[in-house]
Parts: sequence; C-alpha cells; structure tokens
Amino acid sequence: ELQHKLDLLHPADIAHILEALPLDERLLVWDLVKAERDGDILLEVSDAVRETLLAHMDSDEILAAAEQLDADEIADLAPDLPQAVVHELMDSLDKEERAQVQSALSYDEHQVGGIMDFEMVTIRDDVSLEVVLRYLRRFEELPNHTDKLFVVDKSDILKGILPLKRLLVNDPDMMVVDIMAQDVVTFRPEEDAGDAAQAFERYDLISAPVVDKQGKLIGRLTVDMMVDIIREDAENEMLNLAGLREDEDLFSSVWASAKNRWPWLAINICTAFVASRVIGAFENTISSLVALSTLMTIVAGIGGNTGNQTSTLIIRGLALNQINASNARRLIIKELGIALLNGLVWGSVMGLIAWLLYKQVSLGLVMMAAMVLNFQVAALVGIFVPLTMHKMGRDPAFGSSVLLTATTDSMGFFIFLGLATAFLL
Amino acid sequence: ELQHKLDLLHPADIAHILEALPLDERLLVWDLVKAERDGDILLEVSDAVRETLLAHMDSDEILAAAEQLDADEIADLAPDLPQAVVHELMDSLDKEERAQVQSALSYDEHQVGGIMDFEMVTIRDDVSLEVVLRYLRRFEELPNHTDKLFVVDKSDILKGILPLKRLLVNDPDMMVVDIMAQDVVTFRPEEDAGDAAQAFERYDLISAPVVDKQGKLIGRLTVDMMVDIIREDAENEMLNLAGLREDEDLFSSVWASAKNRWPWLAINICTAFVASRVIGAFENTISSLVALSTLMTIVAGIGGNTGNQTSTLIIRGLALNQINASNARRLIIKELGIALLNGLVWGSVMGLIAWLLYKQVSLGLVMMAAMVLNFQVAALVGIFVPLTMHKMGRDPAFGSSVLLTATTDSMGFFIFLGLATAFLL
Ligand SMILES: [Mg+2]
Ligand SMILES: [Mg+2]
Ligand SMILES: [Mg+2]
Ligand SMILES: [Mg+2]
Ligand SMILES: [Mg+2]
Ligand SMILES: [Mg+2]
Ligand SMILES: [Mg+2]
Ligand SMILES: [Mg+2]
Ligand SMILES: [Mg+2]
Ligand SMILES: [Mg+2]
Ligand SMILES: [Mg+2]
Ligand SMILES: [Mg+2]
Ligand SMILES: [Mg+2]
Repeated sequence: ELQHKLDLLHPADIAHILEALPLDERLLVWDLVKAERDGDILLEVSDAVRETLLAHMDSDEILAAAEQLDADEIADLAPDLPQAVVHELMDSLDKEERAQVQSALSYDEHQVGGIMDFEMVTIRDDVSLEVVLRYLRRFEELPNHTDKLFVVDKSDILKGILPLKRLLVNDPDMMVVDIMAQDVVTFRPEEDAGDAAQAFERYDLISAPVVDKQGKLIGRLTVDMMVDIIREDAENEMLNLAGLREDEDLFSSVWASAKNRWPWLAINICTAFVASRVIGAFENTISSLVALSTLMTIVAGIGGNTGNQTSTLIIRGLALNQINASNARRLIIKELGIALLNGLVWGSVMGLIAWLLYKQVSLGLVMMAAMVLNFQVAALVGIFVPLTMHKMGRDPAFGSSVLLTATTDSMGFFIFLGLATAFLL
Repeated sequence: ELQHKLDLLHPADIAHILEALPLDERLLVWDLVKAERDGDILLEVSDAVRETLLAHMDSDEILAAAEQLDADEIADLAPDLPQAVVHELMDSLDKEERAQVQSALSYDEHQVGGIMDFEMVTIRDDVSLEVVLRYLRRFEELPNHTDKLFVVDKSDILKGILPLKRLLVNDPDMMVVDIMAQDVVTFRPEEDAGDAAQAFERYDLISAPVVDKQGKLIGRLTVDMMVDIIREDAENEMLNLAGLREDEDLFSSVWASAKNRWPWLAINICTAFVASRVIGAFENTISSLVALSTLMTIVAGIGGNTGNQTSTLIIRGLALNQINASNARRLIIKELGIALLNGLVWGSVMGLIAWLLYKQVSLGLVMMAAMVLNFQVAALVGIFVPLTMHKMGRDPAFGSSVLLTATTDSMGFFIFLGLATAFLL
C-alpha cells in the first residue's frame, strides 16, 4: 500500500522523501520504488543522497535505471557510477547518443556544455507555418520546455528562433523566415553555467540555443535546469560562508559529517591560536589591568560583526556584477565612511560604559579609540578579502568570513591592548 | 549616442546599469531613458534603487510610466508611489483592471495573490483543437510564458489545462476535453509565494493557474516571477545572516547605510557586553593566571564556528522541508555525536598546545574539557535556535548567528573560566 502511494508520486516528491529519511528507512523505501523510475529519481536527489542509493544497487540495477534516461541525463549520473557500469552503458547507446554523452562529459557541470540537453525541434526557414504545424503533428510528444523552435540551415547553423507564441497567432500561410526572431540570446558550451542562469533570470527565458564557434546549433538550455543552478549556488554560498566543505546528507554517519567539518575547523583553530598569541604578547599589560581582558573581547567581536556586514554586501554586489573598477573606489570610501560613523557612535557608547564600569576616563578613551580603529580594519578587510578572492577567480564567499574574523580578532586585540600598553600603564 | 545605445538595451539591462551607478550618474542615465520604457525599468530595479528613481520623478512622469503597465505590475509599484498618484492612476483604469489591482493589493508580496498576473488564455472543453487554433490566431500576441491554455466552464471554474505541446502534436479534429490534462498543480491566492516557488522548482513548471475556494480561475503564476523569488529569498537569507536589515543600495548615503546596520550592531553590542561581564565575574581568577585570558578566546571562538556549521545545516534542512518531528530527535543525537567527536579531537589538540605553551598539565586538561563542553553547547544552540524560530513562524536564519555567537561566547568564557577557578587555583 506504501508502494501504491509511491507509484502515484512525482519522482521529485519521492526524491524529497528519500532525502528526509535516515539511511535504513531510506533504503527500504528505495527498494519499493519501481525499477523503471529509479533513473528519474536518481537525477532528482542531492549528490550526497545519490551516493547512498547507488552504493546499495548492483550493476544490473544501475544499468537498467540508466537506460531509461536521455543522453544529457546519463552524463549527469556518469561521474557517480562505477567505471565498469559506465563502459557497459556507453556500449548500449547508439552512435549519436554516445557522441552526446561524450560531449556532455567533456565539459564540467559548471559549464553550459555540461548542463545542456540535446532534445530540440529544428525547422528550416523556407517553409510556411502550415508546414511547421503539420511537421509538429508527426511528433509523438514535444521535448519538455519547448517554447520555441530552432530555425537552422542545412549545415545546422542557427538562423533564428520561432517562438510557439508567434507560430500560433500568425497566419499559417506566412513563411518562417518572415516570422522568426533573429536577435536571439545564444550561449556557448564553454560559458559559465551561473552566467547563463543570470541571463535566463534577466531576460525571462524558458529555453535558449547553445551554439559552437561556427554558429552551429549543438544543444539547448532550459529554465528548469537554471532554477536548480540558482538554488544550488545560493545554498553553496551559504554552506561556504559557514565553513562546510560541501553538501552534507542530513543523515550521513557521525564520522563522515565530522570529517566534512574539519578543514574549516582546522583553519579556524589556527586563526584563533594566532589571535590568542597576540593577547599572549600583552600578558604583562593584562596582569596589571585585568579589566582589559573583559573589554578586549568586545572590540574584537563587534569588529567581526561589522566586517561581516560589509563583506556580505560586497559578495552580493560581486555576484550581481554590480562592482567594477570604476565604482570600487567610491565603494571603499563609502564603507570607510560608514565604519567611521559607526565606530564613533558605538565606540562612544562602549567607551562611556567602560568608563562607568571601571571609573577610569583614560580606559574609556582607549576603548573608544580601539573601536574606531578596528571598525576601519573591519571595513578594509570586508572589502578587500572578497574583491581579492574574486580577482583570483575564486568564490568570494569561500573563506571570507573566517579570514575576516581572524583579522578583526587579532587586530582588535592588538589595537586595544597596544593602546592600553602605551597610554594606561 | 549614449541615448541611442540605451534604446537598444533590454529594460533589465538598463535596470542593471542603473543599480551599478552612483546616485548622480544614475539620475543622468535615467533622464536619457525614453519615458515609455520607465515603467518596465522601474519593475526591474531593486526596491532600494526604485526609491531613488521615483524620488526624482514628478507625478505626471510617474503616471505616464505606470499607464504602460499591466494591472499586476501597477500593484507591484503602488506601495512605492505617492498616495495622490495612486488615486489618479486607479481612476484612469477600466473597471476590470481596477478590480485586478485591488485584488493584487489585498495580498502581500509574500503571497501568491500578490505576485500572480491576470493575463491568460482560457478556452472551453467542448470545442475541437482546430477551433482553439483559429481562436488563438485572433490574438495580436499571446501573454508571456504561455505554455498552456486554461480550460474553464462558463462560470470560470477550472476544468483542466491544455499544454501547447499537446495542442500542437494532436490531430486538430480531437476535442479539448479528450486532450486536456486534469491533474493540474493549482495554487490558492493566500498561499505562501516561497512554497509556490518550491513547487515550480520541483515540478519544473512554466506557468500554473491560481484558483479561489470555489475552484474559479482568478490568475496565473509564471516561472520568471518564481525565479526572482528564489533569488531574493536566497539573498535575504544571506543579508539576514550577516545582520543587515534589508536590501541596501550599494550607493546610498553613508548615513542611510550606517543606520541600516544599527539594529544588529546594537544587538551585537549587547551580547558582546554580556559575554564580557561573564569574564568580568572571573577577574580574580584571571589576575592569578593571566594565561587564561589568551586561551578563553579560543574556546569561545571555535564554539561559535562549530555552532554556525550546525545551524547552517539545520536552516537549510528547514528551508527544504527535510526536518520534521519524526526525524528531529535523530538529528539532535547525530549533531551531539559530531560535536563530541570534534570536541575530543580538537580539544585534545588545543589542550596539548596549552600544556606545551604554559608547561602545566592541568591547564591543558581544563582547556580540553572546556572545548568538549562548549562544542556540546554550540551543537544544542545551533539546533534549537533555528528550530524555535521556525516553530514561531519566523525565518530561521534571522538572528540565528548572533544568538548563537552570543551563547557560545558567554558559555565558552563561563565554562573555561569556571573550570579554571575550580581546578587550577
Ligand atoms: Mg528500486
Ligand atoms: Mg529536474
Ligand atoms: Mg526522462
Ligand atoms: Mg550534464
Ligand atoms: Mg533533458
Ligand atoms: Mg526576470
Ligand atoms: Mg526617463
Ligand atoms: Mg521580470
Ligand atoms: Mg509590459
Ligand atoms: Mg503584485
Ligand atoms: Mg505580467
Ligand atoms: Mg526542477
Ligand atoms: Mg568571535
């Protein structure tokens, strides 16, 4: 009866259920799923969950599942499959499909060539719409997300597109060449998938042609893939910000999860150790004025907070391509201005509190000066870390927050304890 | 010549240029844009930038821009327009459009009713596809993102949908009722827009009908809007995590930006102050063993880092609806297990370093014990803060990281200095 319910569900819904189940129950459900749906479901689950499902299948099951899929989908699964299964699978394909799988595998999944599909309807420009309509009726079914037909010449060079909207409202006696759109948004297979997703978003596209250097039509992008990319990029950004190496199965083993978190924990241990050695250098100062040990954590903590605000805005501006050489200087000046204003405001507040708490005006002044200075440090680091990452071609979110906290902690301690050593002892 | 270039650009591209320009240059470009394109561009720019553009236009200009728009688009702009302009605008609409604008305004922008549009093609089920094709040819143009026609009865009750794909591949003599799909994904106007976006993502939809309680067709959702929602939700999550109140114009004034960052800075100042008072309670302990002041920041900092990893995974699991009552306990046990393992591993490392640094075995043991315990605190807070926020119907990302750091800092200091007081003095 559970099996019957599963049969009625969309593959994406089954994938969702599998992702929310602990491993043992997940495999129970997986065994209940009809074999011919395995392929579609494997495509929908997250990479981490896909691994757990594949580990539980034998070669024949995997082969049977993969044979239900299109060339582009096989290429998506291939990196997760045992080498032997991939070979057997390739042998079972016809020549055209094999070439498509190989083409897809020759690009990585962050490139247009790695996510395009090969199902599309092409027409010639020298026929009437009536002919096109009759041609379409010979199809069993049109490919998903077909909102336009691709107009090509006899060497497959893309001449234009015929949106179904135009096909349907125009007189069937009109010729394709007179109706088709020629200013087409096209993509190249080596382009970045994220950039393509941004173009889909900006121009509200449903599908778009992929062409090679010669202008030959070689594939098609569809909005459903782009939506997945937008979602995944956003999720990865969040995971990276938190210092998680990669997508983690909610129910993976304690050991696997713990290891997933080690690289960043290790980096963080190092940076925290450095910051603590900065304090260590001022142990004499602290022993003569213990109040410093309580106040220094405020200077460092608030610096990290304000720096994170700055870097988040910069990361977002970079992701939206809003930051360039001509406006970067203005942004830097603006952020330093904000940091100065906020440093003075909140530095005064904390300076006043320090004064009231320890009845020492000079301590209050040192507190205020340290906060103003650490706000400047935070703003500079918050701007330059993501900008530098971006220039180096890396994800600006990756590691920004750890590097930022490392600097604002160390510098916060150094500035505050340094000023205290100079003016209070 | 700049004007000529602008005329050739897509409104979304002009919006992007405007967002990347400082205010003075932005307004120069805005004045060059043809008046009849103002409306489309206002819809594309971010809320923060839209305010700066509208502030620069007089009522007549705004009115002229808005008159180019559809009812749903007018409703999107209305909240940002002066009251008088909205009244004048409403008077200029015909009865049907006015009702549509009012309907859209009666929902907020996080509800389906606030983002649906009203342009759609409806047909009856008792006609042949041939009749449908002839009917479509009478349109000047089909609405954007028309991938399906809505089949309704004479009281506008939705009976099914006719995908264009089916219209095109089937024999024109077939009847709509025999071809249409009846298992339709529909939405209700009071539903959450984010949930609708998730459904679009999961079922790879391009457009979907919105129906009222009686099943009457009242509007339509399209994938381009859903893509915008997915992007905006992801961005807001990131901004919230960093403690930024809302979308910020990259080039807004220093004063406006500084204020945008105050609420969270203020909260952070308070939590940092509390943490520093925890240290203050142990000033005597610190004066007898200054080494504690250097090591305590490591315990607190690493706790914050590991807690953020946990809460990020929980926030993500909640966003994907993967966490529920039945698996929550398992997750808690798993996270506590990871925290125990990581606490023992990294606590030993730091304990060893503390021992070597200060030649005191007991100090190393206290360091290790404090790290193990603070890892447990971090895991518990990292799980329960987002879960509680979610139960209270709030965004789990909102404030999680501040609350988390507040607890791991305070508890880290308390545990470490408390253990030190008990065992080292
Ligand atoms: Mg199965
Ligand atoms: Mg899919
Ligand atoms: Mg398929
Ligand atoms: Mg692929
Ligand atoms: Mg495909
Ligand atoms: Mg868009
Ligand atoms: Mg203008
Ligand atoms: Mg749009
Ligand atoms: Mg329009
Ligand atoms: Mg609206
Ligand atoms: Mg619309
Ligand atoms: Mg999808
Ligand atoms: Mg900290």
